[in-house]
This record gives sequence, structure tokens and C-alpha cells, in this order.
Amino acid sequence: MTHLADSIRSIRQMVAAAKAEGKLIGLVPTMGALHVGHARLIQQARQESGFVVASIFVNPLQFGPGEDFEKYPRDLDKDVEKCQSLGVDAVFAPTVEVLYPGTPLTFVEVAKVTEGLCGRFRPGHFRGVTTVVLKLLNIVQPHRAYFGEKDAQQLGAIKRMVIDLDLPVEVIGVPTVREPDGLAMSSRNRYLTPEQRLAAPTLYRALQAAGQTIAAGVRDPAQVRQAALSMLECERQIEPQYVEVVDAELMTPVEIIEKPVRIAAAVWLGSTRLIDNIYCEVK
Amino acid sequence: MTHLADSIRSIRQMVAAAKAEGKLIGLVPTMGALHVGHARLIQQARQESGFVVASIFVNPLQFGPGEDFEKYPRDLDKDVEKCQSLGVDAVFAPTVEVLYPGTPLTFVEVAKVTEGLCGRFRPGHFRGVTTVVLKLLNIVQPHRAYFGEKDAQQLGAIKRMVIDLDLPVEVIGVPTVREPDGLAMSSRNRYLTPEQRLAAPTLYRALQAAGQTIAAGVRDPAQVRQAALSMLECERQIEPQYVEVVDAELMTPVEIIEKPVRIAAAVWLGSTRLIDNIYCEVK
Repeated sequence: MTHLADSIRSIRQMVAAAKAEGKLIGLVPTMGALHVGHARLIQQARQESGFVVASIFVNPLQFGPGEDFEKYPRDLDKDVEKCQSLGVDAVFAPTVEVLYPGTPLTFVEVAKVTEGLCGRFRPGHFRGVTTVVLKLLNIVQPHRAYFGEKDAQQLGAIKRMVIDLDLPVEVIGVPTVREPDGLAMSSRNRYLTPEQRLAAPTLYRALQAAGQTIAAGVRDPAQVRQAALSMLECERQIEPQYVEVVDAELMTPVEIIEKPVRIAAAVWLGSTRLIDNIYCEVK
Repeated sequence: MTHLADSIRSIRQMVAAAKAEGKLIGLVPTMGALHVGHARLIQQARQESGFVVASIFVNPLQFGPGEDFEKYPRDLDKDVEKCQSLGVDAVFAPTVEVLYPGTPLTFVEVAKVTEGLCGRFRPGHFRGVTTVVLKLLNIVQPHRAYFGEKDAQQLGAIKRMVIDLDLPVEVIGVPTVREPDGLAMSSRNRYLTPEQRLAAPTLYRALQAAGQTIAAGVRDPAQVRQAALSMLECERQIEPQYVEVVDAELMTPVEIIEKPVRIAAAVWLGSTRLIDNIYCEVK
């Protein structure tokens, strides 16, 4: 039975009761519009925790002006149903007024990790992410929190925040789930027209092509980026925003590839912005 | 018996053991050089908690270039002795390397509250304060944390941080303790020459004179400030940095005095900077 909590007090009571029974608490923070990627996070939390909380909150703080806060898909009933079928113990779905009752004045920022990649194009985005995640961690006080690797820069920022602030939680990164044609699961995929949807997997194929150059021994990030860009250029519906080869922890551009890296990219398909990334080890 | 912990793991173990016994945890964060003001914080924590932790850490993050980080008084043995005599259960005294093992990239900022008063003259100071206090709260996870009202802007920023970030802790402000001549207790008082020490109580007397104008019905902050400044001007050893009448919660200047305010001031006595403030209700 999945309990629904819409107040801080009620989710805290549920968690306290579970802790009193000696259960480990797993938190899966989401913005709702749950897809198979979220299901994967919840399944892993379910395996590793006695009590699983999924939060559903479209966080205004992480959307910039002109971004898709208003049109971001919301369907709480359907999301709660999915959570129920996945064995979630409690869904925490606060309103904006519950999570930000006054004007928020306090913000958490993670320097360096959030400065490149999406951070360059979405000023304030990661500040909004780390601030709301810190709030959710403080409210739920889980033992473990689960985030998808698709949002690798977000995951990197949260991992660093947890280390730097000595937060008593373990952050678990969960591999990206993909459609059969390679497109990374994302709530924003539903914005795509059928034609754009057909073109979208080129993003992942471009990242794979870039990854193959590293596997083949290329150590110059410019050459690796070019492999991705060349493939993206062949798809006229795609307009690349960035392709970068970054340090897998700090998410900063590398000058030479000698440690594990991520190849990360953002592209526009019409008015829809998609991101994806792959992890590359260096043999 | 006061236990001394110099690692995060050891203080967490002590606190966990106390919590397992059902004890309430009280935290008194300090930078050491303990005086009667700190003793008052510890006494209140002692009355209200089953297990009292005092932290002693001179936090480099809250000192600006050219400030007194290097010369700030440090005497751990004497501080631990004082803690012992006051019934502190555990002293957490980490080194800089323990609290900042890598380059800190994550910072917490409280807008508005930290912008005026000392914030205007000490850029980065409050960011350092809120960041280290959040770390200490995450490490110790106390039920209550105690701070002196002498640092009213710091107290205001921490209270706001705790609200905004949903931290599961109660912040207690404890009234300023003063020398018989009115000088607020401060670790920096020991920097004063005998002559400066004689002049120093003028700071509090000036604040009192300003407070009396409010009690007498003055509602114009400029007039209230002037009462303090006039008295400060009579003491040639004192160079005022600021005198402000601010909202008692937001710590922002008020245009008219109609709610509780604080009158806050900072002055230089030679190379020593002293701050003080008083709370004024409006009848």
C-alpha cells in the first residue's frame, strides 16, 4: 500500500515510523511524469531499502525564464499508480507552497562541477537542483538517495554536495535506461513530434561514435568531440548545443584523456532540448 | 567526563550512542577561546539536553584576506578544561584537514539577511559561517543548536537557513553576556590595549542611548542612528564602521520603526573590530 504525503510533517512521521522498525530508508527524488528510467531507480531502491520514498515535485527553482516549467508534464494520479505497482511505500508530493512557504533566501551552490555543460546554458539551474535536493534530503533523511546517470552533471553536483556538506546519506547513481533504438528515457521525450522522435536516437549514436574513438586509442578530446559532431551534423533536425569530454567526477573539460571521462551532449530538436552522456574508461 | 573527538566518525559514534539511550542532543558551535558568553550557551544547552556537544573550530572559510584568522586565539587544552567544568559531554575539535579534506566547492548562502551590516564589510564571511554551521549540523545532527545574540546577523542567517532548508534542528538564540561595564563578551576583547579596553564600553552605551530614543517614541531610524553616532564620536579611540536600525528577523534596514528592530553597530578600536547590538521592541 503506497501512502501519499503532501506535507512535510506527514512524510516525516511515516519515515520516523519506518526507522523505529529498524528499516533502511531509500529516497528517489523525481519531478513526476514517471517513465521506465524512474522505475529502474525505484526498483534499485526497493531492493536495497526497507522503506522506499519517491518524491514528486516539479521544482520551479531549477527552471529558468523561458524554460518549460509551465508545460512540464504533470499527472500525479498516474504517477502514484506507477509507484504503487513498483512497491513504493510513500509518495511525497508537496505543492510549491509547502516546499517554499516564503520567499526562499537560502541557496546551495556547487562550484566547478556545475559551471560547464548545461550549467553554461541554464544559469541558476543547478543551484535550484542542489537546493531542492538538500531540502528533500533534510525532510526525508534517507540512508540512500537514487539519481539517474542520464543527468550526469546533476548527479556529480549532488555527490559533491553530499561530500562537502558531510550529509549522512549515500548517493547512488543508476545507469541510464534507453528505448530499444538507444534514446535515453526522459520525461521530455513526449514533447517530440513523430518525425523528431525518429531523429532523436542520433544523439546516442553520436556519443557512441565518440566513445569508440577513445576505445580505439584517441586521447585528444577535440578529435573525440568531432566524431560526435560529425554524426550529429548529418541529422538536419538536430541542432547541437554542446558536446564535451569531461572529467567523470568534476565534470570539467579535460585537455587529454587519461582518466575515466564522460562524453556529454545537449541538442535541440525543434523547441525540445535533450541531453545524454556516456561513461568511458581508459584502458 | 568530557570526551574529545577530532574525527567526524568519532563524534558521530558518541552522538549515536547518546541517541540510542534516548538523549536529546544539544550542540554549541564555537571557535574556541571560550569566555563567559560561551559558558552561558553551554549552560543553557546543558539544561535542555541529555548530551551536550561543543565544537571548537576556527573556520578559515569565514575569514577574509587581511582578517585575523592567523592570530585568532587558540588554546584547546584550556577550552577543553572549561568544557569539562561546564559538564560538556563531547568536544568536537577537528583540524582544518578533517573538515575540509579537499577543496570545498559547495557553499550555502542566505540572501538578504547577510547583505547589510557586517556583510557589507566582510564579503564571503557569512557564506563561510552558514556553510560550516551546516556541516556541523550534518555531522552532529543535534536536536538543538545554540548561538549567541551578540552575533545577531549570524544568528539571523542561521535561523533562516534552517527554515529554508528544512533542517531538523531547533536554533536557540542566547542573550549576550556583558562585562560589568557593559562591554559584550568576545574572544576579540583580548586584542584590546588597556586604554582601548577602557574606551570599549562606549559601544554598548551608544546602542543604549539609541535604544532610549525608540523607547521615547522616535520612529525615524536616522534619528536613532544619530543618537548612537553622537556618543561614539565623543570617544576619540573609536572609529565607527556602521550603526544601523534593522528588522529583527531579516536584518535589513527599516524605513520606519514599527516592528521589533535591532540596533547593530561595528567599530574599530585601533586594529581591533568589535560588534554589538541590542533588541528593541516597539510599545
